[in-house]
Amino acid sequence: MSMVIDELKAALGEKVSVNETIREHHSKDESFHTPTLPEAVVFATSTQDVATTLRICNDHRTPVVAWGAGTSLEGNSTPVRGGVSLDLSQMDKILRVSSEDLDCTIQPGVRRKQLNEYLSRDGLFFPVDPGADATLGGMASTGASGTTTVKYGAMKQLVMSLTVVTANGEIITTSRRARKTSAGYDLTHLFVGSEGTLGVITELTLRVFGIPEVIAAATMQFDSVREAIDGVIEAIQLNVGVARIELVDREAVVAVNRHSGTDLPHKDLLLLEFHGSAESTALDIAAAREVLERHGGQGFKQTTDEAERRKLWQARHDASLSCRAHQPGGRIFSTDVCVPISRLSECIEQTQKDLAESKIYGPLVGHVGDGNFHVLLTADPNDHAAIERLEQFHTRLVKRALSLEGTCTGEHGIGIGKIDYLVSELGSEAVNVMAMIKAALDPNCIMNPGKVIAETVG
Amino acid sequence: MSMVIDELKAALGEKVSVNETIREHHSKDESFHTPTLPEAVVFATSTQDVATTLRICNDHRTPVVAWGAGTSLEGNSTPVRGGVSLDLSQMDKILRVSSEDLDCTIQPGVRRKQLNEYLSRDGLFFPVDPGADATLGGMASTGASGTTTVKYGAMKQLVMSLTVVTANGEIITTSRRARKTSAGYDLTHLFVGSEGTLGVITELTLRVFGIPEVIAAATMQFDSVREAIDGVIEAIQLNVGVARIELVDREAVVAVNRHSGTDLPHKDLLLLEFHGSAESTALDIAAAREVLERHGGQGFKQTTDEAERRKLWQARHDASLSCRAHQPGGRIFSTDVCVPISRLSECIEQTQKDLAESKIYGPLVGHVGDGNFHVLLTADPNDHAAIERLEQFHTRLVKRALSLEGTCTGEHGIGIGKIDYLVSELGSEAVNVMAMIKAALDPNCIMNPGKVIAETVG
Repeated sequence: MSMVIDELKAALGEKVSVNETIREHHSKDESFHTPTLPEAVVFATSTQDVATTLRICNDHRTPVVAWGAGTSLEGNSTPVRGGVSLDLSQMDKILRVSSEDLDCTIQPGVRRKQLNEYLSRDGLFFPVDPGADATLGGMASTGASGTTTVKYGAMKQLVMSLTVVTANGEIITTSRRARKTSAGYDLTHLFVGSEGTLGVITELTLRVFGIPEVIAAATMQFDSVREAIDGVIEAIQLNVGVARIELVDREAVVAVNRHSGTDLPHKDLLLLEFHGSAESTALDIAAAREVLERHGGQGFKQTTDEAERRKLWQARHDASLSCRAHQPGGRIFSTDVCVPISRLSECIEQTQKDLAESKIYGPLVGHVGDGNFHVLLTADPNDHAAIERLEQFHTRLVKRALSLEGTCTGEHGIGIGKIDYLVSELGSEAVNVMAMIKAALDPNCIMNPGKVIAETVG
Repeated sequence: MSMVIDELKAALGEKVSVNETIREHHSKDESFHTPTLPEAVVFATSTQDVATTLRICNDHRTPVVAWGAGTSLEGNSTPVRGGVSLDLSQMDKILRVSSEDLDCTIQPGVRRKQLNEYLSRDGLFFPVDPGADATLGGMASTGASGTTTVKYGAMKQLVMSLTVVTANGEIITTSRRARKTSAGYDLTHLFVGSEGTLGVITELTLRVFGIPEVIAAATMQFDSVREAIDGVIEAIQLNVGVARIELVDREAVVAVNRHSGTDLPHKDLLLLEFHGSAESTALDIAAAREVLERHGGQGFKQTTDEAERRKLWQARHDASLSCRAHQPGGRIFSTDVCVPISRLSECIEQTQKDLAESKIYGPLVGHVGDGNFHVLLTADPNDHAAIERLEQFHTRLVKRALSLEGTCTGEHGIGIGKIDYLVSELGSEAVNVMAMIKAALDPNCIMNPGKVIAETVG
């Protein structure tokens, strides 16, 4: 390894660090997974730096793990096999924005809030909102989505093209800037969600949208999750134009009120948002309200006040934090199942029953328009018995979601902890095809080893 | 080859045919590309039949080309290396429809019109409309789109999961039925648009939509393509809710009137469609009209009459036929470039100038909301000088589109004729990555050889 570091230093000079504090910072993400130190950190400032790093590491069969903001939830950016943490946070330039084509090209270290601040000058925004102020490179790599997917789609739908450096240091562009294409294999989508195991993203072209004339938020309470979800199903069937439709269960409402100073009624909550013109949002709100009230929705409240709306969504985004406050020193134990929406209330009800029976504190929030929900679990990483109990619960949850035709991960990725679940979910034949692709593109297995696919598969 | 046919017959009996007429039927698609006979045709009726065929052919290194309806436009289903044409048209069952989840699962031989007739009983529809009554398996394989992409997306966006048989006869499912997932590599998108060169699709799960309460069509004339497209750009920027927005240039309008008995004014035409509630479509139509009139749109006409609307769209879909009528015995020479919409009028104007200078009859239609347009060329396949002239024109057109950041194919695929353009478009490094994937999944190169990627690459 010292030879690798010497070569990297010779090529990249002070961009290479072996400083203990810096390595420590790159050893973990937001999850409970055990930190592992990289042996060096490279701060890339260009695609060429990335290519240089990969060429050197590939020659020496040294693992390389891309690093953005460290906000991942599945250990995705933890260097479990050591090697080099390739920090892309300094590649944070917005290279171009087109309000005619409604797209932009950026470097991977650009963060979500930074991008939206910049775009807002042109009356534009990028909708994907996972809560955390993640980098766009990281969001593409994990296939992130969040609260606006129901209207705008996830990263998968909004990444138009990528520049990627493959394991051998080749630089490729996956697609042109046209709005659609049938030109060859869809490399864009192959790299989105591959968690840095096939290559390192060094540039992204993204679709963007005009900031709507009106953004209105609304809340409604329900006596049960089932009523709320039946309402959501009908609203989506009727194509009511919601931009966000989020469930915060009663337990999570209590936590949010305590943490964020809100005074939401202690019932299951739907939090909605509508985007459009004054006329169209008025129509959408009326239609949504009518449907949801028919399914037992109560206490409808709406606001177009920017400050009030932001406070509401901040409270929703802080739900995870609110629940962590329950356990000082605790870290996030993420769950992320996603099922067809017709099976969602069944999945949530059984999960709440399981939580009660297992005496696990687990408030729940959900991107219910997509069938995706999170149980907000926290654990002291040193309390092995507690972690073990949560892992057993998680295994039951995933099994339940799979039996309901769902997936173990709607938006956080496989990371370290779900490698076996992926095989249960898609079967060894499909995972073998993934392993064949991995072996073809990264024969020395240097790209984020220990993630997504077991190294022994294939 | 006779050994292969014997083995296939032993395994599949009368599903295997070497009948001359049947082979002839499977030798060509709608394009001008030279027909090539397959040595046998297998009529599969199950995924198992497909697996059996592929296992036998892989053992003998015999090419296999999947066949749907033969409506492709780039020779995609022509067996240029002989071998077996694997006809999936008898796998035409609709396996399930969920109006709660807004999805359905079907076999690959289901045709577009058949699917929509079936879905309509539940008040649902599948929007992708390439004009031809193609099979859904074929539409997924070529990455088809058509006239409704601007609102609903292309096959890429609407295929949720596939069952695929790989070259060695393994059966894989690419994804669960959840609305979104971050579970492993996106195999779904890898197979969509791969033109049968990586595997054979035997089942598709597709997103579907509720039939809108109101469907309104509208037409407007323009004095120039540039005015029409400037109007479209602004309408899309303002997020006006159009479901279709199609350009038919003056030359194509003349052809359509002659062929379909319409009496559209001899100007550049925009054909629009709006989907929604009575209230929302009224808002959308007013907004679109206002924008387009500001850009010189004239003679606004709208209709919600089903028969009138169908006649209008049939005329649009028959544009290609109308132009073919210009040259009896001619076959389609497809062009399919797609550019960022801000570059579209430049691309079309230069192309019309080129047509005039080259004295080539080339009416033009475009999915202008996506930046995609087709010059409707026809040629007698035996007139080599004419074909050569069109090929030179096509090379100039693709070069122009690439220089404007576009793609050589928006929706028809690479097929036989664009293999070199793909390299010009994405560079040899990216095409090499495709070739590495191809070699990993189909080491004997039996899957539709001679398409998408040159066999010598990689």
